[in-house]
Amino acid sequence: MSLIVQKYGGTSVGSIERINAVAQRVQGWRERGHRVVVVVSAMSGETDRLIGLARAIQEQPKPRELDVLLSTGEQVTIALLSMALEGIGCPARSYTGGQVRILTDSAHNKARIRDIDGARITADLDAGRVVVVAGFQGVDEHGNITTLGRGGSDTSAVAIAAALKADECQIYTDVDGVYTTDPRIEPKARRLDRITFEEMLEMASLGSKVLQIRSVEFAGKYKVPLRVLTSFGEGEGTLITFEEDAVEEAKIAGIAFNRDEAKLTVLGVPDQPGVAHKILGPISDANIEVDMIIQNVAADSATTDFTFTVNRNDYPRALEILKETAKGLSARQVSGDDAIAKISLVGVGMRSHAGIASKMFGTLAKEGINIRMISTSEIKISVVVDAKYLELGVRALHDAFGLGEPS
Amino acid sequence: MSLIVQKYGGTSVGSIERINAVAQRVQGWRERGHRVVVVVSAMSGETDRLIGLARAIQEQPKPRELDVLLSTGEQVTIALLSMALEGIGCPARSYTGGQVRILTDSAHNKARIRDIDGARITADLDAGRVVVVAGFQGVDEHGNITTLGRGGSDTSAVAIAAALKADECQIYTDVDGVYTTDPRIEPKARRLDRITFEEMLEMASLGSKVLQIRSVEFAGKYKVPLRVLTSFGEGEGTLITFEEDAVEEAKIAGIAFNRDEAKLTVLGVPDQPGVAHKILGPISDANIEVDMIIQNVAADSATTDFTFTVNRNDYPRALEILKETAKGLSARQVSGDDAIAKISLVGVGMRSHAGIASKMFGTLAKEGINIRMISTSEIKISVVVDAKYLELGVRALHDAFGLGEPS
Repeated sequence: MSLIVQKYGGTSVGSIERINAVAQRVQGWRERGHRVVVVVSAMSGETDRLIGLARAIQEQPKPRELDVLLSTGEQVTIALLSMALEGIGCPARSYTGGQVRILTDSAHNKARIRDIDGARITADLDAGRVVVVAGFQGVDEHGNITTLGRGGSDTSAVAIAAALKADECQIYTDVDGVYTTDPRIEPKARRLDRITFEEMLEMASLGSKVLQIRSVEFAGKYKVPLRVLTSFGEGEGTLITFEEDAVEEAKIAGIAFNRDEAKLTVLGVPDQPGVAHKILGPISDANIEVDMIIQNVAADSATTDFTFTVNRNDYPRALEILKETAKGLSARQVSGDDAIAKISLVGVGMRSHAGIASKMFGTLAKEGINIRMISTSEIKISVVVDAKYLELGVRALHDAFGLGEPS
Repeated sequence: MSLIVQKYGGTSVGSIERINAVAQRVQGWRERGHRVVVVVSAMSGETDRLIGLARAIQEQPKPRELDVLLSTGEQVTIALLSMALEGIGCPARSYTGGQVRILTDSAHNKARIRDIDGARITADLDAGRVVVVAGFQGVDEHGNITTLGRGGSDTSAVAIAAALKADECQIYTDVDGVYTTDPRIEPKARRLDRITFEEMLEMASLGSKVLQIRSVEFAGKYKVPLRVLTSFGEGEGTLITFEEDAVEEAKIAGIAFNRDEAKLTVLGVPDQPGVAHKILGPISDANIEVDMIIQNVAADSATTDFTFTVNRNDYPRALEILKETAKGLSARQVSGDDAIAKISLVGVGMRSHAGIASKMFGTLAKEGINIRMISTSEIKISVVVDAKYLELGVRALHDAFGLGEPS
């Protein structure tokens, strides 16, 4: 008998019919002798509906109140799923994040989980019940409702799995696993049976959107076996593993991309110690997350050019902050562009193989795609290109590295 | 500077525009120097929408889970109203029933308030904030979400006013006060400036639907001055008062009615001590509330006939329970009728005036309305008639007792 934590996203619980189908699936696991904790998101469309209500009142709603509002989305789902389970004879009990309790910090709209009290869940499991927990939400030390930000339900599931020392955390979604790239862009994309945590981290953060990055980090930190699989059919999905040896021998696991970023550049900043901190400090203080950071010595060599990328939603605010900062640094110019896309090759095999970067750049050049930024790590190479080249670039690279062929 | 608790019902917060209007009204009270706590219901239609979702999954949803579901309705409103207040420069903070905390018993769907911790609210008021509390909901000692049942938001408001020793509890609704009867049935109905708590109790419980009965009981018990007024205009509304002397001199305050009841009768029960308890015990155990109770000695004088009324929603279940009970009592017959209406004359003046009952029965007889049951108390006379005579009976009585004329 094993303990399984399952997470069902908004599409998987998007209607009464689908909630009933999830109940059947959960009941199946229970009948096969497993103890099951289910973490759910808001029904698809519900979060957007709630945000619409908030925006109709105030363009920038108070973050604390936005959390009070948004957390109702998952609360509706836990109640309905528990009813559906009870309806088919499966004892169930629902809990909000505050009830569990999932303790977070007080950063409303993007809170981080600090601690989970598993006692209440364990007591229900011992009593033979399925426990249904609202994802995406928690409560701070003062009892204020918090949310983890979009996609936070994955993180909730992994954190609960870690707290309960679950045997597996299963993330049910509308795709049947992790692919070499997005099949909507490259039909020849292939499902991977396994992928390493490191590769998955890069795939997730770069926009594969199968899993929320923080959930993968959490899983890695607490060694929670994580599996991505579909709630709309059968199949083993993709297991995210710690054992590198077991991973397929391909040099490249896949191609990730992201079109939700914007880049900002400060030109001609005096090249002095601490300048990077002076530029990024105010951005970080505004709770804006930065992805790529590139610094180059400028032509005159007494100054430097500094470029970074942020989520496109944060672009206007980041640009405003940066212009203010640039004044104090007597920078020559501030510029930005939100019509960009990032394409990344990801793979642990890349470590020991030379020539991958040049093959990547050559492939893009052959298609006439100009590279605007480059950034590399041990297991990935990322390039920023004009947004319009995204699909062309992904398909060309997928083909060049033979990712569509069975390994 | 006084402390005011205001309650806005579902219609008053039924749209973004109306929530903004409520915010303006609250801000007005605050600007005039008052400390304000606002209790709100779910936006009109929301509770029905949620019940519809639950029913689509299960005909009889688990009460605990229904509460988890329904409590999201008010939670949405508190967040939106707080945003609206902040948007017009009025510092505000929202709290769910569980956060306040409003402690109730564990009778899901019809919980009763046991205690309210006012510390958190008082701290916010001291900090100059308006406090927005979700009505209708609470939390039991185990941390489970509970709801007070339909109309429970009024009770929440009065209970909070009592806990905070507020100077006045204002119930904003879609009518501008308490009327001599429902103006939709009798256009000549007149607004009362004042009404006693006892009269209001009878008016509320008998279906005037302006205030939920438990809220009036609460107000009476803790001597909370209660005022009913409209959220769609100006006006002083109706003050519910303890001082009988100040009340208008009319014998009759108004005519209440109720078409949501059904009656159940057991015929030919052996007339022995404890029979009433044996009949009503199982009904009460099923958490079904009983309104009128009438027992008459039957013709054979060795047995008795026993009749009571329940809410029409509880009728099928009550009938089922009663049939079961009747077997054990060797009763002759069980019957029921849910096409009935109750009409009641209410007024403290009635105590000292003979002839009111006979005038009432005479008025109904003149219209050819057959009386099926009669029940009286110190300040009211109720009759049960066929449902089809409701409007005719109310108008005839309103006219006969001259209620439309200025006092």
